[in-house]
Order: sequence, then structure tokens, then C-alpha cells
Amino acid sequence: MRQSKRAAIVAEFLGTTFLVAAVVGSGIMGERLADGNRAIALLANSVATGAMLVVLITTLGPISGAHFNPIVTLAAYHSNRSIQSIQEVWSYLGAQLAGALTGTVTANLMFGLSPLSFSQHARTGTAQLFSEFVATFGLLMVILVCSRFREAAIPYVVAAYITAAYWFTASTSFASPAVTIARAFTDTFAGIRPGDVPGFVIAQALGGASAVFVSRWMIKAPEPATVTNRHTGAMSKKGSA
Amino acid sequence: MRQSKRAAIVAEFLGTTFLVAAVVGSGIMGERLADGNRAIALLANSVATGAMLVVLITTLGPISGAHFNPIVTLAAYHSNRSIQSIQEVWSYLGAQLAGALTGTVTANLMFGLSPLSFSQHARTGTAQLFSEFVATFGLLMVILVCSRFREAAIPYVVAAYITAAYWFTASTSFASPAVTIARAFTDTFAGIRPGDVPGFVIAQALGGASAVFVSRWMIKAPEPATVTNRHTGAMSKKGSA
Amino acid sequence: MRQSKRAAIVAEFLGTTFLVAAVVGSGIMGERLADGNRAIALLANSVATGAMLVVLITTLGPISGAHFNPIVTLAAYHSNRSIQSIQEVWSYLGAQLAGALTGTVTANLMFGLSPLSFSQHARTGTAQLFSEFVATFGLLMVILVCSRFREAAIPYVVAAYITAAYWFTASTSFASPAVTIARAFTDTFAGIRPGDVPGFVIAQALGGASAVFVSRWMIKAPEPATVTNRHTGAMSKKGSA
Amino acid sequence: MRQSKRAAIVAEFLGTTFLVAAVVGSGIMGERLADGNRAIALLANSVATGAMLVVLITTLGPISGAHFNPIVTLAAYHSNRSIQSIQEVWSYLGAQLAGALTGTVTANLMFGLSPLSFSQHARTGTAQLFSEFVATFGLLMVILVCSRFREAAIPYVVAAYITAAYWFTASTSFASPAVTIARAFTDTFAGIRPGDVPGFVIAQALGGASAVFVSRWMIKAPEPATVTNRHTGAMSKKGSA
Repeated sequence: MRQSKRAAIVAEFLGTTFLVAAVVGSGIMGERLADGNRAIALLANSVATGAMLVVLITTLGPISGAHFNPIVTLAAYHSNRSIQSIQEVWSYLGAQLAGALTGTVTANLMFGLSPLSFSQHARTGTAQLFSEFVATFGLLMVILVCSRFREAAIPYVVAAYITAAYWFTASTSFASPAVTIARAFTDTFAGIRPGDVPGFVIAQALGGASAVFVSRWMIKAPEPATVTNRHTGAMSKKGSA
Repeated sequence: MRQSKRAAIVAEFLGTTFLVAAVVGSGIMGERLADGNRAIALLANSVATGAMLVVLITTLGPISGAHFNPIVTLAAYHSNRSIQSIQEVWSYLGAQLAGALTGTVTANLMFGLSPLSFSQHARTGTAQLFSEFVATFGLLMVILVCSRFREAAIPYVVAAYITAAYWFTASTSFASPAVTIARAFTDTFAGIRPGDVPGFVIAQALGGASAVFVSRWMIKAPEPATVTNRHTGAMSKKGSA
Repeated sequence: MRQSKRAAIVAEFLGTTFLVAAVVGSGIMGERLADGNRAIALLANSVATGAMLVVLITTLGPISGAHFNPIVTLAAYHSNRSIQSIQEVWSYLGAQLAGALTGTVTANLMFGLSPLSFSQHARTGTAQLFSEFVATFGLLMVILVCSRFREAAIPYVVAAYITAAYWFTASTSFASPAVTIARAFTDTFAGIRPGDVPGFVIAQALGGASAVFVSRWMIKAPEPATVTNRHTGAMSKKGSA
Repeated sequence: MRQSKRAAIVAEFLGTTFLVAAVVGSGIMGERLADGNRAIALLANSVATGAMLVVLITTLGPISGAHFNPIVTLAAYHSNRSIQSIQEVWSYLGAQLAGALTGTVTANLMFGLSPLSFSQHARTGTAQLFSEFVATFGLLMVILVCSRFREAAIPYVVAAYITAAYWFTASTSFASPAVTIARAFTDTFAGIRPGDVPGFVIAQALGGASAVFVSRWMIKAPEPATVTNRHTGAMSKKGSA
């Protein structure tokens, strides 16, 4: 395997490690300090997660594409972008899952807890599953459309999306199977009961697949030069070809 | 209808859906978790709304201009920017209203509430109406002037404006008729009593019209090259032509 | 007077109006909703003020330089940047003071208070005055040095500085005589007792003058091409000419 | 000594002064206002520190590289970037330590406390030390990798990393020997008992050294033109040379 591919796999591993460590760790810290006010804990949790996403996508994007999420990798493979072979897909998915679990262990140890323990945090029911569908649909739509016209903004846009989604979905927007599995192994604020994981993953997969379908249609039109060359947005002259 | 116009209408629909889902959903989540402290709920509400605006304007701006607001669409039409025909105005307004209502339904369902219910949240009186006038005047002035000199910054500037306006206006700055109407159909933190909607919309229209008038005057001077070519701001050599 | 100069004065007036409306208005909203927890009120106040500074400096910078602060205008005049005549200084200062007072009136009216009232909020003593000195020294140093090497970042840097300075100075960092005077006329969270204004203004003037002195020395070296052409910072090859 | 080197040393001194003043000062303010809710105090503390890092790295980066941290300076020297001689290392380290202590004194005085006092805040144990190792490993890895591919984003990435790290590590991420030593001299929210300083510094050194090792391997591959010329991230075509 060439160095650049090995570096990409290590980047996916380390990135997912730090992402999950930030999610789980800031949840623990928030819960410990917030005197029972869960809104303050979630505010800290969402700000810390968003900030870490800016860091990781900006820094590791040039090395691996900064997926950190199996659904993003599968969508990239499906659209022939950045991921070329099914072997590469598997190595990305393996690195993401291993990284996510390492992130949970790291967070648990930093806060003096046992490395792994099963969460007892129930997250089930139609509203939760619909929330994961909406959260993942939005995340993938944003990544796919933004990558087409404003690729440089991806780190900020993904971070802002997740910060918002922690609040506007009832499930706090896991939106990633790797992260969901890893969060089953911490019995803290960010945890999820192992039995609730499959439902979340299925809802995420459906949301992601729907986003691939819709976003592909939205960006399929050959855009005129005025759009391609522009750097920005609101109210500017849009193409009508 | 050409593909790029159909994509623009879908973008306005989806963008307004996610915007209102973020406004209403984060309001519900904030209120549920904040133990009665409305400042914490509004902090979450304003951060989530601002973050979502960064996401949606950056991502969908190249497709539709990212209006999500009838007053923005009318101002764009009035200044012959991006919107060329009255038919296009109507299709944008229809997509925004349909998207806004879909956003309310989505948020209500994600939190296990009935899809639509009338708000009982009173928002009336001179102070509230003056607040909406100021909020919409500021929003439109910012969009119109910033689009002239710093178009690339629009997503961040609009998001920052709304985050601030949630706090510095007594009405929490609805600033959009589509969003206002949609918020009448959720009996939660972000709701507004249906009977209070017309006053809000009138105040918004007056604020928007005033901003068109003032901002047109402010940017009418032919700016010298030193201004046009600069990328920034404070204390730099400004033109004196 | 040419149109561009008239537009600059209107921009200083409107910008300072919205800045002070944001400072005072978000203070009122924060205090009303925070159930007596002043840290939450100040968090809202600092976030809203920072967000509004991003908006106003980005939007109005190309028109007036976006000073909104007499000390910034005087420093600009002193370094022959953007302000060329003492008449222009006076018109800027007048616009800023009128705008600041209009901002207080606007905020008071939006929250249903009487348009103007004297603050009873005591802000006095050595620690407060030293805080204003430090706050204004830092603000001016940042503006003067950043304008030299990274002018495009000014809106974000000034906004971030003020957001931080609300918290790390005991006075919450007024750092502007126009804003200080205007805040004497609201008996709310952001107010200051009229009798405490002169001390604040003197401390601000001393801090600003010190910053002009220090920053001029720091940037006086003719920087080699490697620095001038670079766009960024940490750990990059710096010139040693 | 040439002017540019003297300016660099003053920039390291002033930058570290303002950084530590922001860390300590916002901790005091947060604690005083938060009515005992430490999560709110830490939220203010982390937002103020992150905002100040954006300011200082953007503004002073072109002058000194904006290290403000002995471990960053040593890593820069080790990789032959920006720091060329061991004398320069010593002058940077001296300026950072002097600046950090001045920052503590400044913050203490702004809040009416005695200039220097020993902290009684215990920060000890395996979890705390492991936290500092993880925090510093992440910080250095981010700086070293991001400097290679996205140098312009360094101010935002470092600020976002520290904001997140305040929350996801049990130690609130000191991650700098100069800052750690200076925080021993304030008996407030951000303090650390003098006896706990050596352990923190050793953990930081080990974390930093590990990051140098890992990041060097990750970026050693000669990247193909498609990566070097790109400005962004997620899902874009990555090199496979």
C-alpha cells in the first residue's frame, strides 16, 4: 500500500478518535458541571463537537477527505469521488469504527471511568428514529451539494450543521453509524443503549440514501459560467440556462 | 421550466424547511431541557438558528440565491437582481411558504407533537411591532449593502445578524413573513398566536421597504477603484470621489 | 460634500446605532430572561455584541471604514489612514455620538422602556479603570497591527476581541467613549452611572494612545517579501531582515 | 539584534500576556457571576479563550509566528521552521514565560485581587495527566499538519481546538508549560496548585513529542499536485501517488 493511502487510513482513525472523544468527553464534563441543567450540558456538548469538526475536517481533509462517517464514505464511493475501490471503502470503514471505539475509551479514561461500559441511555421510538432520518438526510445533502459549489466551506458548514442538529432534532443527531456504535460503550450523557443502535443505523442509512438521490438531482444541471465562477451567494445573478 | 429554475424552487423549499425546522425544533429542545431558564433556551435557539443559516446560505446560495424569505425575494426583484419575472417571484414565495410549513410539521413530529397546532404565544403591542420593524430594516440593509461590496461574506453576516437580533429585539426577530406564518402552527417556545401574525408581517414589510430606500442611497455613489478592489475594511483608504 | 463622504457619515451613524442597540438591547433581554444568573445574561450580551460587530464591520467597512468609535477615528487620523482632515474627524465623531444615543433610544423603546433614563449602575474604582485601559489598549493594538498585515480579517478579529474582553476585564470592556456616553442613558444591565463616564473615557484615551505608540514600533520594520506575501501565521517562515 | 527579531520577541510577550489574561480573567468573571454553576463559568471561559486565540494568532502571526507556547516553539525549532537558532528558542521561551506571568498579574489586578498568589486548586491524578497528554498531542498534531496544508486556517483551527479541549479533557487542557506555570499564581477558577505543575508539564512534553513523531509520518508523503493546489476538504479527489 502506498504511503498516501496508509496516511489516509491513519487520518480516518485519528480523526474519528478525536471526534468521538470530543462528543463523549464534553458530554461527561457538561453533565458533571451543569448542576442538573441538561440544556447547559448540551450547549457545551454541541459547541465542543462543532469546534472539533472545524479542526478535524480542516486539518485532515487534505489527507483522507475527512469522512469519519461510514455513510459519507459510501456516498463518496457511490459518486466516484475520492474513494475508488471497494477495498478502500472497507479500510475506511474499519478505521472509522476502530477510531470511534478508541475515542470512547480515551474519553472514559480521561474522566477516570472504566474504559468501556454499556450505556443505559434509552433512545427509542418513532420521534427519535424520524429525527435520525432528518438529521442524516440534512447532513448528506449539505455535504454533497456544498462539495459541488463551495468545497472550501465544508469544514465550517459541516460543523455548523451538527451544532444546530444537536438542538433541532430530538435525538441530538448522531448521524453516523460508527459514532452511534461507539456511543453505546459509555454510560454517560452522550451514550445510547446498545439495543437502540440498530434502529438508529437503519434510520441513518435511509436518510443518507434519500439525500444522495435528492442532491444528485439538484446539482445535475450544467451550471452556466456565472455560477461556477462565483464565490458566493444570496441574491446574486443566478444562471437560467 | 428549465432544470436550473426547478432546482432553485426545490432549494428554496428545502432551505426554508430546514430553517424553520431549526428555529422551531431548537426552541422545543431548549425549553424542554432548560429547567425554566428562558435565557438558556434562547441561547440554544439563537446559536442553532445562526449555525443553520451559515449552512443553508452557503450550500443553497449558488442554486437559488438562498432567500428563504419573501421580503428578500421582493427586494431582489425590485433591484433586478437574480429574480427576473413576477412569475419567478410567485414560485419563490410559494416554495418558501410551503417549505416553512413543512419545517414546522417536521419539527413538531421530531419531538413527538401533533403535526400542526395553533400557538397560544402572545406577541403583540407597540414594542413588539417596533422590534420587528427594526429587525427587518437591519436585515435587509445588511443583505443589500453587503451584497454590493462583500458578497462572499453574506452567509456569515446574515447568520451573525439573526443570532444577535434574537437578543437585541424584544420580538426575537422573526423578520420574515413565511417564517412568521409557519410559527403560528406550533404551540411551543418559538410559536406566535395566529392573531398576532398580521401585525408582524406589516411591520416587517415597512422595515424591509425602508431598508431598500436607505441602502439604495448608501451604495449609489460610483465607488473608486480603491474601494472596489479591496477585500476589507476598518481604517483602510476609502474613496473620496 | 461628495456623495461618498455623506454615505460614510450615514454609515458611521447607522453602524453605531445598531452596535449600541445590540449592546443595550441584548443586555435587557439577557437580564429579563436569565432568572438572576448574570453569567448567562453576560454570555448572551457578549455573543450578540460580537455577532453584530462581524455584521457591521463587514457591511459598512467599505463605505466608512467602520470605526463606530472616536478613539479608532483619532488613531486613523493620526496615522494618516482613511481620515484626511480634521473636519472629517469631527463629522465622524458627531455621527458616532448621535448614532450611539439613537441606539440607546432604539433599544429602550423596543423593550417598552422610556426612551432615555439615567443609569444607576456604578462602575468605578481602580480595578474598573485599569480594566478600561487594558481593554482599549488591546483593541487598538489589534486594529492597528491587524490592519497592517491581515486587513481582511478585521471584522472577525475585532468581534472576537470584544467577545473575549466582555469576560476578561472587570468592566466588561466598553472601550469607546461614544458607547460609554450612550450607555449612561439606559437604566438596565449595560448601563453606567453618568458620574462614572469621565473616568472611563480618560482610561480609554490613555489605553488607546499607548497602543498607537507600541503598535507603531512593532510594525515599523520594513518586512521582507516572505512576510508580505504570506496569508497566515503560526510557525511559518518569518523574515529576519 | 535586528528590528524584526526584537518585534517578534515583543509580540510573543504581548501575545502570551493577553492570552493568559483572557484565560485567568474570564475564569474569575465566570466564577463570580455564575452563581456556583461551574458549567456556565467554563462556557464563558472557553468561549473567551477561543476568541482571544483567533485575535492573537491572526494579528501577531505575521510578526512572531504566534507560538505563545514553549512546546510549539520547540517543535518549530525541531522541524527547522521559523526558528533557526537555539538562541532564538531561548528568547522566545523567556518572552513567553514573562508574558504569561504578566498576564496573570494583569488579570488579578483588573479584578481587584493581589497581583500574585498561590493557587490551591488541586489538579492531580492519572486522569488529569492523561488528559494533558491527549490535549497536547492533539494540539501539536493539529498545528503541524494544518501548517503543512492549510496554513491560513491556523488561527481558527487552534482556537476551535482549545475551545473544544476545555470541555473534552478532564484537565480543561492547559497544553502549555508557560500557561501552566502562570496559572499557579492566581487562586481563582483557572488556577493550579504549584505542586501539580511539574506533572502537567511532563505530560504536555510527552504529548507534544508524540505528536511531532506521528504528524511527521503523516505528512511525509510527497503529495501530488491535486492535493497541493486544493484549498479544501471533504470528499475531494485525494492523491494516490
